[in-house]
Amino acid sequence: MSLLFDVSATSDGGGRRGELTLPHGKVQSPVFMPVGTAATVKAVPQDVLEKLGNSEQGTGNSDGGGRGAEIILANTYHLYLRPGHELIRSLGGVHRFMSWTRPMLTDSGGFQVFSLAKLRKITDDGVEFRSHLDGSKHFFSPEHSMEVQIALGADIMMVFDECVETPASWERTRDSMGLTHAWAARSRAYWMEHRHEVPWTRKGPASRAQGPESSEPSGPWGLNPEPSFEGKHQALFGIVQGGMYADLRKESAERLVEMDFPGYAIGGLAVGEPREVTREMIARTLEILPKDKPRYVMGVGYPDEIEEYARMGVDMMDCVLPTRAGRHGLLFIREDPQDRSSAVVRLNIKKQDNAADQRPIDEGCGCMVCRRYTRAYLRHLFASGEPLAGTLNSIHNLNFYLETMERVRGELAVREAARS
Amino acid sequence: MSLLFDVSATSDGGGRRGELTLPHGKVQSPVFMPVGTAATVKAVPQDVLEKLGNSEQGTGNSDGGGRGAEIILANTYHLYLRPGHELIRSLGGVHRFMSWTRPMLTDSGGFQVFSLAKLRKITDDGVEFRSHLDGSKHFFSPEHSMEVQIALGADIMMVFDECVETPASWERTRDSMGLTHAWAARSRAYWMEHRHEVPWTRKGPASRAQGPESSEPSGPWGLNPEPSFEGKHQALFGIVQGGMYADLRKESAERLVEMDFPGYAIGGLAVGEPREVTREMIARTLEILPKDKPRYVMGVGYPDEIEEYARMGVDMMDCVLPTRAGRHGLLFIREDPQDRSSAVVRLNIKKQDNAADQRPIDEGCGCMVCRRYTRAYLRHLFASGEPLAGTLNSIHNLNFYLETMERVRGELAVREAARS
Repeated sequence: MSLLFDVSATSDGGGRRGELTLPHGKVQSPVFMPVGTAATVKAVPQDVLEKLGNSEQGTGNSDGGGRGAEIILANTYHLYLRPGHELIRSLGGVHRFMSWTRPMLTDSGGFQVFSLAKLRKITDDGVEFRSHLDGSKHFFSPEHSMEVQIALGADIMMVFDECVETPASWERTRDSMGLTHAWAARSRAYWMEHRHEVPWTRKGPASRAQGPESSEPSGPWGLNPEPSFEGKHQALFGIVQGGMYADLRKESAERLVEMDFPGYAIGGLAVGEPREVTREMIARTLEILPKDKPRYVMGVGYPDEIEEYARMGVDMMDCVLPTRAGRHGLLFIREDPQDRSSAVVRLNIKKQDNAADQRPIDEGCGCMVCRRYTRAYLRHLFASGEPLAGTLNSIHNLNFYLETMERVRGELAVREAARS
Repeated sequence: MSLLFDVSATSDGGGRRGELTLPHGKVQSPVFMPVGTAATVKAVPQDVLEKLGNSEQGTGNSDGGGRGAEIILANTYHLYLRPGHELIRSLGGVHRFMSWTRPMLTDSGGFQVFSLAKLRKITDDGVEFRSHLDGSKHFFSPEHSMEVQIALGADIMMVFDECVETPASWERTRDSMGLTHAWAARSRAYWMEHRHEVPWTRKGPASRAQGPESSEPSGPWGLNPEPSFEGKHQALFGIVQGGMYADLRKESAERLVEMDFPGYAIGGLAVGEPREVTREMIARTLEILPKDKPRYVMGVGYPDEIEEYARMGVDMMDCVLPTRAGRHGLLFIREDPQDRSSAVVRLNIKKQDNAADQRPIDEGCGCMVCRRYTRAYLRHLFASGEPLAGTLNSIHNLNFYLETMERVRGELAVREAARS
């Protein structure tokens, strides 16, 4: 099974410049995917997401923005509990629900069941858990996770996996990995049988002004012509587990490759282990994964990490860090603003020494926040508990991540051009 | 004393189509002014404020927005306490501090001292009070309010007035009014002596990219050429008090007109009295106020009220209602979406019957929220406590208010054109 993934350049270190073609559009890789847990990237409007990043030659928006986030994540666990996947299915899927016309990815709900939900009971069949919202009882199996993810209708779904606690013994990790593999096979079987059931063809709200009453296009689907999903369906990625044990990682990768997925994720990392271990586990796994399919490391990381892993050959990453840190007043900047490859520094905007600072957050950053607002103003907003603080801080941090990936993509492409 | 105020049309009912020329730009009246209490219109970024309203022939933004908010308010009491007026003065005034290039108005702090602060002690000289933030002790006199407002540097300042409790006896109201008149005279004297002390000429942060290091324009002052404030200064408006007593309102208006202000506000209304009383007090006061100067009713009101008062001849209004209601999930719509003059209805987005509603908030509204998002999505955001809910709801409500004023302005202008 494969989806369209073109690798146009590979560096000596293994970094790949690629392009994924998904039902809702193309994605330039390596890519960082902002997390929209409850069908919203917290505090950031969709039109701002579409303009993030620096203006790239020939690709920027006319109003000075960049290519924006080309793919975002949503969390299956959260949307299943609220507002419910059947509601979202009936409204045409999560794209239409949140008015996002570009590619999306949903996780399987596994990680949240293991980290957020209460009173879990795990059997070979699946996991019984209680909602963190209201204590109500629920059951997730691989089949049910697939059913929910098909209702949500993201371009990429993830298999349902067990996430082992950290640290875990070799034996415990091996047993958990075995369950994950069995669940991966069941996820894949359900997906093969049901993947034609995408909700995309149903007419959604954004078509409202296209009827006979009005000839004026309206909404994002009005402005962009309604995409055709003829013959297209969701992709399913396998997830490599194996904890912090290189032999188990190798075994897990081999087993999943045998099952043949359109793409592969590396899960269960960045859960508290030293960064050298994370890097080692990624490196060992990448050796096994096929070079012609996208590779996704889930839930990482700091800006220097995503850059490092991209250069090692990871094509996709996601993390709540840019938005969560932003809401807590932590802003990512470059040590030397004019050198975008220099070290990443965290600026705590709350600090008193920002109170009269008339500089932008990062003098070398071209985001809409740095072009307009000062540290003094952002400090005031944060210290006053103003909601605009979370919005502006999140926009800067997301831009910082996307700018970082743009730079890595540019360098990977240039290296290849010089060689040919 | 006058500022440039051109009235181009007056309806039979007294409604006026006008234009104010202020140091930071022109304002079409009648106008509704969004409230930016702490130098931020809560949850709404400045670039969105600049694009609010419907696209008007030849005046809209190229990206489909309207002329935006042409003037906004900030609260002197809040900015005095946090971050402090001396800091804002040192940064070039509140315009530069919040990166807002268009006109602004500051209130005197009087209303907040009487409604928010604790342990007030009022003498003829001024008011001693304790901060609602930390209990610290402060003193506001007419002179001190002027000093703070000059540091903030809004285009229009307000005299420091006493706000009487509601209901208040005729005698109590008369005595309070006497104090307000004495304070108005002292405010005016201080302003006459110090109004050259505007902070506008100091170079602020937005000039950062205009130095020799970079020729690229940056920020709102970079994109728009630095305005010249040569010979320009802040205006000061008097405030008519007199409670709910027509004879006192008349006396107050006459006394203030004798003092000669560039504009006049009507204060102390919409504090719990029946709407007929509000209307009556406004009507009686407008009779006395000079026709060639702007008239401002403070702190009103619902969308149908601002329309009614605009048609009576009120030129300026402000209210926290659109943003505060928005944050509480209350959205203003028209009963008949295709008839923008039809009754105003309040939609409670939280209600279950919005859960699967694929319509926009208001099918006849052209705001960026109604063009893109459904009631179902907005209900989900609100029910999930997502910060984007407050932002999108506030944007719609502000747009509703600005669209209402646009329509009234258009009708006033058309009426005059038909007559001539």
